[in-house]
Amino acid sequence: MATVLRGLQDIFFTQNDVLILACSGTGGMEAALVNTVPRGGKAIVLSAGVFAQRWAHIGRAFGIEIVEHQVAWGRAVDPADVARLLVQHPDAVAVFGTLMESSTGVVHDVAAIGEIVGKTKALWVVDAISGAGAIECRTDDWGIDVLVVGSQKALMLPPGLAFLAISKKAWQQMDRVECQAFYFNLKLHRAKLREGPTTPWTPAHTLIAALAENLKIMQSEGIDQLVAYNRQLAIATRAGIEALGLTIFANPPADGMTTVSVPDGVDGGVLLKRLESRFGVKLAGGQMQLKGKIFRIAHFGMIDALDILGTLSALEIVLLELGWSITLGSAVAAASQHLVLAEPALVHHAN
Amino acid sequence: MATVLRGLQDIFFTQNDVLILACSGTGGMEAALVNTVPRGGKAIVLSAGVFAQRWAHIGRAFGIEIVEHQVAWGRAVDPADVARLLVQHPDAVAVFGTLMESSTGVVHDVAAIGEIVGKTKALWVVDAISGAGAIECRTDDWGIDVLVVGSQKALMLPPGLAFLAISKKAWQQMDRVECQAFYFNLKLHRAKLREGPTTPWTPAHTLIAALAENLKIMQSEGIDQLVAYNRQLAIATRAGIEALGLTIFANPPADGMTTVSVPDGVDGGVLLKRLESRFGVKLAGGQMQLKGKIFRIAHFGMIDALDILGTLSALEIVLLELGWSITLGSAVAAASQHLVLAEPALVHHAN
Repeated sequence: MATVLRGLQDIFFTQNDVLILACSGTGGMEAALVNTVPRGGKAIVLSAGVFAQRWAHIGRAFGIEIVEHQVAWGRAVDPADVARLLVQHPDAVAVFGTLMESSTGVVHDVAAIGEIVGKTKALWVVDAISGAGAIECRTDDWGIDVLVVGSQKALMLPPGLAFLAISKKAWQQMDRVECQAFYFNLKLHRAKLREGPTTPWTPAHTLIAALAENLKIMQSEGIDQLVAYNRQLAIATRAGIEALGLTIFANPPADGMTTVSVPDGVDGGVLLKRLESRFGVKLAGGQMQLKGKIFRIAHFGMIDALDILGTLSALEIVLLELGWSITLGSAVAAASQHLVLAEPALVHHAN
Repeated sequence: MATVLRGLQDIFFTQNDVLILACSGTGGMEAALVNTVPRGGKAIVLSAGVFAQRWAHIGRAFGIEIVEHQVAWGRAVDPADVARLLVQHPDAVAVFGTLMESSTGVVHDVAAIGEIVGKTKALWVVDAISGAGAIECRTDDWGIDVLVVGSQKALMLPPGLAFLAISKKAWQQMDRVECQAFYFNLKLHRAKLREGPTTPWTPAHTLIAALAENLKIMQSEGIDQLVAYNRQLAIATRAGIEALGLTIFANPPADGMTTVSVPDGVDGGVLLKRLESRFGVKLAGGQMQLKGKIFRIAHFGMIDALDILGTLSALEIVLLELGWSITLGSAVAAASQHLVLAEPALVHHAN
């Protein structure tokens, strides 16, 4: 446990306490919320997609007043709006947002928002479930008070664990709050962290053992190198998509994934089904109001350049089959331009 | 998922809905409690040890009024007391108890309590985290409205999943309750069960895949056979312990484990450390006020007759080394008397 916790601190760029919970990422979000905001308290949610919205759903389920700041899906929240919201709602206990909003593919300027929130009494709580370890995420430098991360994304584990990194300011707030939690009561987790380190409830120990192995791989490559690698893949993927005349949906796009607008005249559902049935490429479509309108390509964790080049090729073939005007090889050629002599090497040890 | 859910229904002897949560057993208990009892509602807890007490701790954390009926640790709750409590507290929404209270080793008469609770509007909610699949547990016949089971006990998986079996009466109650839950909101889980079957949050799918394999093994042996096998081991273990002049702590003892009083003049901590360092036998000691006073031998799941015979032999040797008057071989001989020509065969396919 001690080794794993130190490894997670490295990956998350933090000296804060890291906790391991046996639950999915949503459980980690609930823990972050119910420990920091009391029943009847107020919280600001930066709602830029399905996952940010989940903060609002969780809060309302626990009788918390949610100020939901909604932006068009596919866009990120402007840090200036956060400053304004904090002035309008000086009683807000915390601001909840996402690093990489994986329902739309946008990245938030977590550092800029952190600087603004850090000047107030409020906490900055970030869902980095899919983002941390995939794209830059400097927990301490960026003033993130509670970071929430999932096991099955950049950390390349099966689902079943959530990780939280908790600042001193957040612990002080938690000490003031009578939280609506038992399984997710982070003060019970803190006590066992100090004693052990261990956990108050039976840990999902096989996943923790696997995490120790994955951390060794990630540390041997270096987290900065991994982030740079994913960024290179992002640039290549976007270039490939644009060479097909398709449009990147997210603005600004996160470097861990590329979200593409389904072109007019193409059935998004048929496109994805065909990619899977013909090539075994499983891309996610849009959720809620984005269903059928976008598809999403991840490029982090176990996914490497070979996967991306293959996926772009398969996409060319399937689009052609669906009647879209495509020059075979054009997406791959455009992507490859960005990979010639690229550093770091385009394969990593996890594969 | 569908196959696994049917398999769990077989093991739990139920036609009720079975849900799979990504959490430890404690998370499953919390889900059972916060969905059935509203904030400010009243619940009766049959407190016979550490795990039953946990029901009370969870309830109080969520503002629920707990009527805690305490019995001496090592004894079971008398069903007649439950009848009396229900008359005294007709506004109690549910009765919470344990099947095999693994902190003390007692078994509860879940059927008798179920018959009493079933005559009222209250629900009968049973922590069978370690018991179900190890000892007899007839969910439907015994009137259990919510059954809670863990993955890492009789089902022989790593920790990380909790299972709940939920009666129609319990669903009706849950439909009336505004639950203090999001991750553990069972109505969200029910909706996805009906749709899929799937889960509202990312499932711990590798554990579910492993569960499918373990269920095949258990079903090929037959759950009645497994229960009979564990009962045979229980009888043998108790005989071995008593042949050493030691005392069984639990009354009535569960057939899934044997809890032994540490004899006067023996340091319980030293005994357990020596068993582990000399023989690799890891027995659990007592918790809370039972620390140093008891030790506990499990005989279910992956543990078979060979493990028990070896453990009794090791116990003889270590007790002799600690100055206790022991005839080497006496415990094993007494236990073996109960295993000669025993049916079912004393090995199971999981090993």
